[in-house]
Amino acid sequence: MALMRFSVSLDEGLVRQFDAKIKMDRCPTRSKAVGDLIRSSLVQTEWRAGDEVAGAIVLVYDHHKRDIVKKLTNVQHDCHDAIISTQHIHLDHDNCLEILAVRGKPGEIDAIVKCLKAVKGLKHVSLAAGTTGERLL
Amino acid sequence: MALMRFSVSLDEGLVRQFDAKIKMDRCPTRSKAVGDLIRSSLVQTEWRAGDEVAGAIVLVYDHHKRDIVKKLTNVQHDCHDAIISTQHIHLDHDNCLEILAVRGKPGEIDAIVKCLKAVKGLKHVSLAAGTTGERLL
Amino acid sequence: MALMRFSVSLDEGLVRQFDAKIKMDRCPTRSKAVGDLIRSSLVQTEWRAGDEVAGAIVLVYDHHKRDIVKKLTNVQHDCHDAIISTQHIHLDHDNCLEILAVRGKPGEIDAIVKCLKAVKGLKHVSLAAGTTGERLL
Amino acid sequence: MALMRFSVSLDEGLVRQFDAKIKMDRCPTRSKAVGDLIRSSLVQTEWRAGDEVAGAIVLVYDHHKRDIVKKLTNVQHDCHDAIISTQHIHLDHDNCLEILAVRGKPGEIDAIVKCLKAVKGLKHVSLAAGTTGERLL
Repeated sequence: MALMRFSVSLDEGLVRQFDAKIKMDRCPTRSKAVGDLIRSSLVQTEWRAGDEVAGAIVLVYDHHKRDIVKKLTNVQHDCHDAIISTQHIHLDHDNCLEILAVRGKPGEIDAIVKCLKAVKGLKHVSLAAGTTGERLL
Repeated sequence: MALMRFSVSLDEGLVRQFDAKIKMDRCPTRSKAVGDLIRSSLVQTEWRAGDEVAGAIVLVYDHHKRDIVKKLTNVQHDCHDAIISTQHIHLDHDNCLEILAVRGKPGEIDAIVKCLKAVKGLKHVSLAAGTTGERLL
Repeated sequence: MALMRFSVSLDEGLVRQFDAKIKMDRCPTRSKAVGDLIRSSLVQTEWRAGDEVAGAIVLVYDHHKRDIVKKLTNVQHDCHDAIISTQHIHLDHDNCLEILAVRGKPGEIDAIVKCLKAVKGLKHVSLAAGTTGERLL
Repeated sequence: MALMRFSVSLDEGLVRQFDAKIKMDRCPTRSKAVGDLIRSSLVQTEWRAGDEVAGAIVLVYDHHKRDIVKKLTNVQHDCHDAIISTQHIHLDHDNCLEILAVRGKPGEIDAIVKCLKAVKGLKHVSLAAGTTGERLL
């Protein structure tokens, strides 16, 4: 992929502030720092625009809860098109951390989150919104 | 304030995507769009770093609720150092929208929000995190 | 408005945790704490559902920037239906904190934020999403 | 774990609104809906309080970018105490979705996110904040 060079004009003080932040974040170059801000804003736009996106859904539950494993498996199979794979961690004797890698339209992913939330016995559901990377070069 | 010009190198496709977003947002120039992203990230840093910040606290309440106006006034006077001024809107016969302009350390502003939230009868409290603009040029 | 009493059954440990948080937040009763959580979740639903909402838009800018006051005034007049009133604070010699009390459909309020963001010279725009309180009793 | 029953008194209209939302979300009972709100607020408190938490970090990158796989592996090995396991999805010919299951103090997890963000060639980093479930019954 070809690199493109363009220049921006900003108040000197703002650039100094930005440089300080870049250094603090140990970000290697201004170009990377500007690119990261642009990419983040584009990922937000993808989710709002309804483009195909990717991300992770995090579940925490006690596997002793009545039928919870069966119910979560059922929900996941109903949505198998959008759930790519699952990672399961035994946090302790009782608690499970389950992470679903998902890909689809934002609406489909929201629907999965809603179905999972309706399962009794779940302690926590959260979503990390990501991207398929296709439109982010 | 002097303008400073610097150039960034990014993948061409990413710049094209960004240009499309800039156009959609009717943002006049790339420099402004990059500057806006930088300023937003710096405001977040100010709040995390504990620098002096500014913003607005939004309250919604029914003024008929027992003593609520008195209680809210008391909390606000206890915190008069950080509350600059107040704007009050009569939304309808019952509901009030009250907006407090605030300025101080993030910890002080969080403490005000907490005290306000503890008042019985409040329907809603939210915060718009802003900046004093001093470090943002 | 009539009070309604209902009971909930939750794991004892969870209730103990919640009680500790209520105490830490100096919230007076469990009913208020549960009511606050319910109201917050309903305000989010109002914004997603496109119901009429209210809130505050926070602007920070340097009033010396060329034509910025004029441009901001123009945008605000174009959207005068949704902007109820404005509060202006002189933060220092240069910086202004301007807080717009707004009311309307979420889409209208987002459009105002977008128009304001497109104005050159603005340092910061943020939104505190609130409610008209009408549906929140 | 023993169930505990307690009752709350709220305005009737608010309970009606909440019931409508519960139905829309297909949540089975009021107790579950109240418990979910309480658990979410407690997870936020855990992250602010610096308690041990768990969650997922989502990375998206083009594996063709120079040395990116090596660099990401290095960062992950430097932080192996907090990274439990990794899930890797080949999104397409170029793009990878990598999901790290993490556990540790919020400060440790933020530090990992920061180190990962500093790697050149990454398209996206996001975090789903979760819980170890230990304190959430």
